[in-house]
Amino acid sequence: MQAHERGFFTEENSVEVVTGRNINAKDARLRAVMDVIIRKLHEAVKEIEPTQDEWFQAIQFLTAVGHKCDDWRQEFILLSDVLGVSMLVDAINNRKPSGASESTVLGPFHVADAPELPMGANICLDQKGEDMVIHGHIRDVDGRPIAGATLDVWQANDEGFYDVQQKGIQPDFNLRGLFRTGPDGSYWFRAVKPKYYPIPHDGPVGQLLAALGRHPNRPAHLHFILRADGCQPLITHIFDPDDPYISSDAVFGVKKSLLANFKRTNDPERAYELGFGGEFWDVEYDFVLAPARAGKGLA
Amino acid sequence: MQAHERGFFTEENSVEVVTGRNINAKDARLRAVMDVIIRKLHEAVKEIEPTQDEWFQAIQFLTAVGHKCDDWRQEFILLSDVLGVSMLVDAINNRKPSGASESTVLGPFHVADAPELPMGANICLDQKGEDMVIHGHIRDVDGRPIAGATLDVWQANDEGFYDVQQKGIQPDFNLRGLFRTGPDGSYWFRAVKPKYYPIPHDGPVGQLLAALGRHPNRPAHLHFILRADGCQPLITHIFDPDDPYISSDAVFGVKKSLLANFKRTNDPERAYELGFGGEFWDVEYDFVLAPARAGKGLA
Repeated sequence: MQAHERGFFTEENSVEVVTGRNINAKDARLRAVMDVIIRKLHEAVKEIEPTQDEWFQAIQFLTAVGHKCDDWRQEFILLSDVLGVSMLVDAINNRKPSGASESTVLGPFHVADAPELPMGANICLDQKGEDMVIHGHIRDVDGRPIAGATLDVWQANDEGFYDVQQKGIQPDFNLRGLFRTGPDGSYWFRAVKPKYYPIPHDGPVGQLLAALGRHPNRPAHLHFILRADGCQPLITHIFDPDDPYISSDAVFGVKKSLLANFKRTNDPERAYELGFGGEFWDVEYDFVLAPARAGKGLA
Repeated sequence: MQAHERGFFTEENSVEVVTGRNINAKDARLRAVMDVIIRKLHEAVKEIEPTQDEWFQAIQFLTAVGHKCDDWRQEFILLSDVLGVSMLVDAINNRKPSGASESTVLGPFHVADAPELPMGANICLDQKGEDMVIHGHIRDVDGRPIAGATLDVWQANDEGFYDVQQKGIQPDFNLRGLFRTGPDGSYWFRAVKPKYYPIPHDGPVGQLLAALGRHPNRPAHLHFILRADGCQPLITHIFDPDDPYISSDAVFGVKKSLLANFKRTNDPERAYELGFGGEFWDVEYDFVLAPARAGKGLA
């Protein structure tokens, strides 16, 4: 009976017993990851001391999250987003050298094949919203302009919807475009001022947010993916600092360095040059790309 | 801008920022539970440092677990089981006074309306398997026999299947029954020796077990729910200590105190009395029920 007495599960030794079963894992990384997950799960259970009913509520919640997922909706990513996990994984994988622009979450609305446009093009195809011009430079960490960098931009319209959420209402590829810098590393394009919008909140994650007294909104922003030879790709946003939700982004995507200045501008001559009918928003934002990392590591 | 600088998410302050959003939760318990879950999740992410690919693999795994759940299959409970979470919740909710019998997991195969049978009945309805008699006493922590206690028993057959898994092959209510103690608190009934069996392992949880080099088997056991006035209900198993999987139950349900002695017995006279054809298994196990708890607390 001696052998049987070893390794039975108790409240005290639960972590050691369960992780002890992973010793034959084929993949060392999987074993290491599962060891941490098991330890943290057990720590959480021991601190929470859930009743059987509460445990079952958790099971039912996770099941509902799974059942909400389909080809068009990823409720577990949404859960990861609202618990700050997605941003934490982003932060860990995108620690930048001093001076480089910071990253934030990709989000679900990127489209791979947006058209490449001439610098200065207006990505707003339906003339709805308040005119906006965005301009700045793309540089390396030593301050040198980067020629031939691509800037892939997408944003919601002034009602808070992306084109892919309003097929048939917005034109295809509305408020999307790919721009390429010239020798001076500058960029500019025209658009309309985006608006805040809610993440999908008609599912179990929305119910959780409501129960926690949290709103589902993301403050107004423009998405960017910047690429250049010899540089790390940068997935980021720039935000309107005057948005009502700027300090309470439902997915924690805001960083201080990503706040742009959205300047309301009354300049008839410049408006005329830009093809705008009157007042417009002037947004200037410079990007700094980090050098590509040697080796593989966290890519 | 001062207000904006407070509360933005960073790798360092991630827990404070995310839990800080829960301050308006309507339910104090939900807030406390989510605060712990968020803190432990972030601790796990910071320790694991997952790549974006690994994070997405986790999202896909949880989604597959959710999609495997239906009215007949609860893959998230299975996941909780194989990670030791179910047993930990059981342990926390069933801390027993010294001397009382220990609990273990309920499992998915209990049926609410098993027939009440006269003491000594044979719950094996199809004569398949090795004969077994199980007997003992039900007492309180002071050693007094408990009259009128009910003992709800269910078990797998000698091929490792419950009746509900083999409808049309096994008779309905095969290897199930409800017994009620008389004045001396004793119980006895007849059955067949159960066999180890695998938990459902054709889904994502089975794939995880395989990747971790773990088998899916539960050692042979009988399930019991014991109830008596003035006592805490007891949900437990007794196990065959000679089972090949006794030290590696896939769901961590084994406790040392739940090992019974399965004694192979060659006693023609007793076999005749029991209606058995030859050798049989003799299992003696005494249960001790804890007094009912005052108030509510963890029920």
